[in-house]
Amino acid sequence: MRPQTATPETATPEMVLAARLFSDLATQTADAPGVTRASFGEGEAIAHALVADVARARGLEVSTDIAGNQYMTWPGRDRRAPRIFIGSHMDSVNHGGNFDGAAGVVAGLAAVSALQDAGFTPAQDIVIMAIRAEELVWFPTPYCGSRMAFGLLDPAEYDAVRRSDTGRTLADHMRAQGCDPDALRAGAKPLDPATIAHFIEVHIEQGPTLDLRGTPVGVVSGIRGNLRYRHGQITGRYAHAGAVAREYRHDAVLAGAEFVQHLEGIWDRLVATGDDFVATVGEFWTDPAMHGMTKVPGIVRFTMDLRSLSNAVLLAVDTELRAAAARIGARRGVTIDPGRFTNAPPALIDPALVALFEGSARALDIPALKLPSGAGHDCATFSWQGVSSGMLFIRNQNGSHNPDEDMQLPDFAQAVQVLTHALRQLAGG
Amino acid sequence: MRPQTATPETATPEMVLAARLFSDLATQTADAPGVTRASFGEGEAIAHALVADVARARGLEVSTDIAGNQYMTWPGRDRRAPRIFIGSHMDSVNHGGNFDGAAGVVAGLAAVSALQDAGFTPAQDIVIMAIRAEELVWFPTPYCGSRMAFGLLDPAEYDAVRRSDTGRTLADHMRAQGCDPDALRAGAKPLDPATIAHFIEVHIEQGPTLDLRGTPVGVVSGIRGNLRYRHGQITGRYAHAGAVAREYRHDAVLAGAEFVQHLEGIWDRLVATGDDFVATVGEFWTDPAMHGMTKVPGIVRFTMDLRSLSNAVLLAVDTELRAAAARIGARRGVTIDPGRFTNAPPALIDPALVALFEGSARALDIPALKLPSGAGHDCATFSWQGVSSGMLFIRNQNGSHNPDEDMQLPDFAQAVQVLTHALRQLAGG
Repeated sequence: MRPQTATPETATPEMVLAARLFSDLATQTADAPGVTRASFGEGEAIAHALVADVARARGLEVSTDIAGNQYMTWPGRDRRAPRIFIGSHMDSVNHGGNFDGAAGVVAGLAAVSALQDAGFTPAQDIVIMAIRAEELVWFPTPYCGSRMAFGLLDPAEYDAVRRSDTGRTLADHMRAQGCDPDALRAGAKPLDPATIAHFIEVHIEQGPTLDLRGTPVGVVSGIRGNLRYRHGQITGRYAHAGAVAREYRHDAVLAGAEFVQHLEGIWDRLVATGDDFVATVGEFWTDPAMHGMTKVPGIVRFTMDLRSLSNAVLLAVDTELRAAAARIGARRGVTIDPGRFTNAPPALIDPALVALFEGSARALDIPALKLPSGAGHDCATFSWQGVSSGMLFIRNQNGSHNPDEDMQLPDFAQAVQVLTHALRQLAGG
Repeated sequence: MRPQTATPETATPEMVLAARLFSDLATQTADAPGVTRASFGEGEAIAHALVADVARARGLEVSTDIAGNQYMTWPGRDRRAPRIFIGSHMDSVNHGGNFDGAAGVVAGLAAVSALQDAGFTPAQDIVIMAIRAEELVWFPTPYCGSRMAFGLLDPAEYDAVRRSDTGRTLADHMRAQGCDPDALRAGAKPLDPATIAHFIEVHIEQGPTLDLRGTPVGVVSGIRGNLRYRHGQITGRYAHAGAVAREYRHDAVLAGAEFVQHLEGIWDRLVATGDDFVATVGEFWTDPAMHGMTKVPGIVRFTMDLRSLSNAVLLAVDTELRAAAARIGARRGVTIDPGRFTNAPPALIDPALVALFEGSARALDIPALKLPSGAGHDCATFSWQGVSSGMLFIRNQNGSHNPDEDMQLPDFAQAVQVLTHALRQLAGG
């Protein structure tokens, strides 16, 4: 984190509070380079305690559910009305940055502070939620904390899913933090979606789009779903590169190159027709134990990660890819098997919230860009539960999941201004 | 090696001799599965001794040069006339087959035996040469034994090149076999190309063409040269597969797929225009330590092995590939660097020997197919020295460099008949 420069926007009381909170988070969870706040680990607990202290100092009610999620509630005039949630996760990857996740909780505290200082009283409760265990590197089950809040985790996962660094189970780590995995496994649902009017997540952008477009704030239009293929394999036949003529070859790399080019062709076509789609072949490798410069390659292993705002697009691409794999494979005498996929459907963002955020940015003369979220966020869990959900992105340099995350406080301040302006509309009734 | 069936062709005295020699070689250099005859190792020395015994029993003069190559000479009427060489190597890969290399030396002994039994006396000396150290797996310098015979090895190689299994230098291993690397390094040239009229190498085909075409004998039209690229690299940028939009990606796999497809397109075009060419991308791999299903791949490493009977074709393909690499790389914001190549130029086969072998096969009513040799052979060394050179291939099952090589004795017998017939013409003057 480079030294943050004070500007008129960052000199407000709520920004002074936010800056101190970021500084305390960085210091108290430091693990050079960067910070480490493992899911259900020490750093995450420290982060929860830090924001709870600030919340209490601002008069908020602080509670935790049996999954360890923390709720900081600013009481509204009608305590029974469906509440407005502002939330994100507090864990980080190993040697990660200070802002991925935490910025969303700090943004909620800053916005509430600004509204309090302005003498505003919300119509309904505004709840800032510090969510557990979002970073997949620790427990490999998506949106673990937010899904537990709704009782959505498979009962078997509590003992099956283990933390990557310790090898201990989720249940074990949860108990060590005073949570109750047994009650959750038995069917407890700490959070009822019917009690939530809106869920808003503020998060740093993990890509470079806002930075490259020179825009401080992003309004998320949707959260892409994905198809993931972990075990693709192309099976041809190893052969002597000098001795085997072309017509007797079954070359896995040539087949793979054609298949990957075909996937890129599909991508081109979808872009041309205005469909949202992105594809990554992150792994594509001949086997170092078997391959050689003078050997026709017999096996290629590969992965695919396909994302779209439309699940129909994803499933249509899968069908088309499998047909292409069969066709290319048959022509070349190889087998192209993408393997099984997992499907996380896209999460719908409430268009009313998109319009609200865009209107707030316009009213405040803050440049804002509408863009899809390619990465998943806890917000998706709320959307899937039928909760009206929205997201704001904050411009950020150097990506995320590394110690060089470099969100600038003036950008954060502008996102908080948009959030605050929007909350006035949502909670002004 | 499956049990070899006796046929009229294999019941001749020279075939009985050949069968016993193959059997002794297999037994005495056995290293289950298969045989191991390391270059300048025990198995190779055993093989040299076995063929020397047979040669002496047939009245041939046996000598070795200071590089360890063994010469078994059937004196001709004119001892000063340029000699006819029949040669191949005696080493094998680790757990290799019994026939790769050895078949050529055994074929020479069988042909000479047949000519002796027929009362033939050659016009000039016929020399059967058992060559050292051809298999690259042991000492990674091509045609080591035959190049040393002509004093062609770089003086630095004797101490720089080490055997893959022992880590000891070539010079060290040579001395242990009674050779004199120091004299070679000082410039000795044991063999003078001016004293050789023809070099003929009989070798199992290492590919499946003869087997699939149902033809026992191949007449080699040329030995392909190659361009080899050991250190190709495509350098893009690793990025979050969910967070980074397409226009900001620098995807090394997509660039690599296009580059490989481009190479295949060049291959298609050369085939269409009748140019000899074959290409292998044997290694193509994202780094297992860095890649991931949800990461845009930043680096791909790859190799290329390009072969052709025409060095001009190879060098033109290199130029075209580098231009394509620059173009594709620039468009995608990645660097595609094929890296440096090594160039082994093609070896010319004497068309007169091709015609002679084809005529002999026709006269004997033995089906023979003219085909290029994609793999390199010691024959290339003689060709590069300006010696009229020719090769015969023997049909073989299951490829080479593995214990399942499965040359059939009746096929070997037919190759020996062609060789014997041809020798009558060459040495009948």
